[in-house]
Amino acid sequence: MSNYSAMDKNTLNEEYKKLMESYSAYKAQNLTLNMARGKPGAQQLDISNPILNVITTDSDFRSEDCPDCRNYGNLDGTVEARTLFAEILGVDKKNVFVGGNSSLNMMFDTIACMMELGCAGEKPWNQQGKIKFLCPVPGYDRHFGVTGYFGIEMINVPMTENGPDMDIVEELVSKDASIKGIWCIPKYSNPQGITYSDETVRRFAALKPAAKDFRIMWDNAYIVHDINSTPDSLLNIFDELPKYGNEDLVFEFCSTSKITFPGAGVAAIAASEANINILKKRYTFQTIGYDKMNMLRHVKYFKNLDGVLEHMQKHRAILEPRFNMVLETLDKQLSDCGIAVWTKPNGGYFVSVDVMEGCAKRVVELCKEAGVVLTGAGATYPYGKDPKDSNIRLAPTYPPVEELEKAMDIFCICIKLAAIEALTK
Amino acid sequence: MSNYSAMDKNTLNEEYKKLMESYSAYKAQNLTLNMARGKPGAQQLDISNPILNVITTDSDFRSEDCPDCRNYGNLDGTVEARTLFAEILGVDKKNVFVGGNSSLNMMFDTIACMMELGCAGEKPWNQQGKIKFLCPVPGYDRHFGVTGYFGIEMINVPMTENGPDMDIVEELVSKDASIKGIWCIPKYSNPQGITYSDETVRRFAALKPAAKDFRIMWDNAYIVHDINSTPDSLLNIFDELPKYGNEDLVFEFCSTSKITFPGAGVAAIAASEANINILKKRYTFQTIGYDKMNMLRHVKYFKNLDGVLEHMQKHRAILEPRFNMVLETLDKQLSDCGIAVWTKPNGGYFVSVDVMEGCAKRVVELCKEAGVVLTGAGATYPYGKDPKDSNIRLAPTYPPVEELEKAMDIFCICIKLAAIEALTK
Repeated sequence: MSNYSAMDKNTLNEEYKKLMESYSAYKAQNLTLNMARGKPGAQQLDISNPILNVITTDSDFRSEDCPDCRNYGNLDGTVEARTLFAEILGVDKKNVFVGGNSSLNMMFDTIACMMELGCAGEKPWNQQGKIKFLCPVPGYDRHFGVTGYFGIEMINVPMTENGPDMDIVEELVSKDASIKGIWCIPKYSNPQGITYSDETVRRFAALKPAAKDFRIMWDNAYIVHDINSTPDSLLNIFDELPKYGNEDLVFEFCSTSKITFPGAGVAAIAASEANINILKKRYTFQTIGYDKMNMLRHVKYFKNLDGVLEHMQKHRAILEPRFNMVLETLDKQLSDCGIAVWTKPNGGYFVSVDVMEGCAKRVVELCKEAGVVLTGAGATYPYGKDPKDSNIRLAPTYPPVEELEKAMDIFCICIKLAAIEALTK
Repeated sequence: MSNYSAMDKNTLNEEYKKLMESYSAYKAQNLTLNMARGKPGAQQLDISNPILNVITTDSDFRSEDCPDCRNYGNLDGTVEARTLFAEILGVDKKNVFVGGNSSLNMMFDTIACMMELGCAGEKPWNQQGKIKFLCPVPGYDRHFGVTGYFGIEMINVPMTENGPDMDIVEELVSKDASIKGIWCIPKYSNPQGITYSDETVRRFAALKPAAKDFRIMWDNAYIVHDINSTPDSLLNIFDELPKYGNEDLVFEFCSTSKITFPGAGVAAIAASEANINILKKRYTFQTIGYDKMNMLRHVKYFKNLDGVLEHMQKHRAILEPRFNMVLETLDKQLSDCGIAVWTKPNGGYFVSVDVMEGCAKRVVELCKEAGVVLTGAGATYPYGKDPKDSNIRLAPTYPPVEELEKAMDIFCICIKLAAIEALTK
């Protein structure tokens, strides 16, 4: 195996034929494999099953600030739940609002709140004409979905190995007051698994946006989601913000979706008291309160941050070999070919692969025909448009290992097929 | 005891003195009693405790349309949960969307969706300038809170013993296209406990609003909440709508908040497929899905509508004597005085008392000073303004019975004190 760009057309055609034989053999198996969504696998979910026995008929349903968690009340969650998330996020519990089962929903509600009420004494976003959001790319399709839903124009900002390109971010936000925010996944980013460098976090904390009502959506979805023995560490942006008088700049989000159960976890927001108060101006009309019984379950099960971290080691034990296998397969099958590069994350849920420009859609198509479903090409970009048609997101957590092996083999074959098709065109 | 209006000033002053002695005696007890919010009491919550043992570590987490309810998926809920709510509401499961723990939240999201996306091919509500909502009064403060939050002007429509005054409703909606909806609690209304008559339901189903995008918010919060042996029955509006070509006119809401746990129940919407599809255009960006484990708990516990109805009999056994006591106290202490009228509901959560005009605030104030918290006077009206300052909502479910007895005694004394103050002014 050698670099495809060094091969002549005949050699490439020979290679294509050989690859096509393997591809056809897979196709004949009528497989249905899926590496599309970042869902925990069944084995991972089993880890958290004991949480289901924590609250039963004979339990104590009390919280320190709620006499009976079965009943109405506590708009911002129980104090124990707020304390647990405060520990996870490294903030004070007065800065934490605990919600329902979905941090995505809390992000959606936060954008809705800014649209309807605004912040920093400025007009609500929906009364300011065209407004824009910065979107580090590749990124998370559901973030782009939220801003897209609200008609907010999205501007791509390239990711670097240290996080979003801060020269571009600083330049854009300092000049254009219609830019109201940026989506960030600061630790083990989706899809690349990149953790923002200390410098990047500091530059975010020190931003001087033209818009007083500019807000950073800091989606810390993978804050405790290490998958190997060399985990990344992320500077706590809430420790940095006061140094620059920027306490109100950040809304941070987090959930137990990928700690316990994606369908039945607990989500939370951390923000300055001023920001929490704005959110409460909306939440107070939206609901009487979220599911405190599920908060109680989580608090009694984990007790504190140490409990969470111990629990995450069980996830790691399942995920590490999977990620290793994915990376080893990529390495073995593609490293010499010069037709793809990929990230090697220390945590999170994804591996990001950049195939030859103009080939991502074709790779996804070839995979689909062989029964392997991938996240759609372009999904990692706003409006579903990857300008280079190059990025593909792999989600190695959900399929059983033997299926994952097959899927990865097919994926590598498809990358090669697409590359040769492009090179011999 | 006789009619206060027939008493002369001296007799009234004598009566006032006597009452003030009882009042002062209560005040000296430094009581803290609460008849303010419609919360189930602890005894009621205990009824549902077995639901907490239904799903445990060893359970089957499957739903017919979801291989693992612990994981992401099923935006509109599990098919079993949709089927259960379809049975409760008397509709087809294809017309049911099951959500999180709060029907109030689903109402809020529905209004938000109409504001942002609109319906019936019309512009979104937030692009139509000033819009209005009809609010039957007295009504539910949190309904008024939602429309108030979105800047929708609220118009009072008086309640009759058969529901909202339909002459006024028909007149207003047929003439004014800026009226976009109405809040309804069709069974055991909050606060009066009135169930809409068949004629009222039919007239709602037959409405011909000037606004094509007019929608009825049909909050069926107390659909199975009978409290005695002479329950009301409500015509199913979804059976009537097709007769008038009005399939899209109604969003119906319901939850298990007052069936199982207010903090940890399950909520649902019933609507035409067209309406559900509009809601999904928003929900699909708002969340990946709601808590299916809690849906599973409810479905496994209740099995079907019969299971729910049987369960509700246990609530009735607790609530019936409380409501009887409240009504008997009112009867015994006030029926001859001619200074208050009240409703005698067969279900729901409230008793509505109309005191002498101009006296409600004073009654609430006197109660508060004696340690009895009531729902604020005016809360049952939009903008918190009861034009007659007459309506007070009693919530007899939450306090322990012995407290409720004291609170009711104090309440009646305060009604009398306020009345004499007004009559001798």
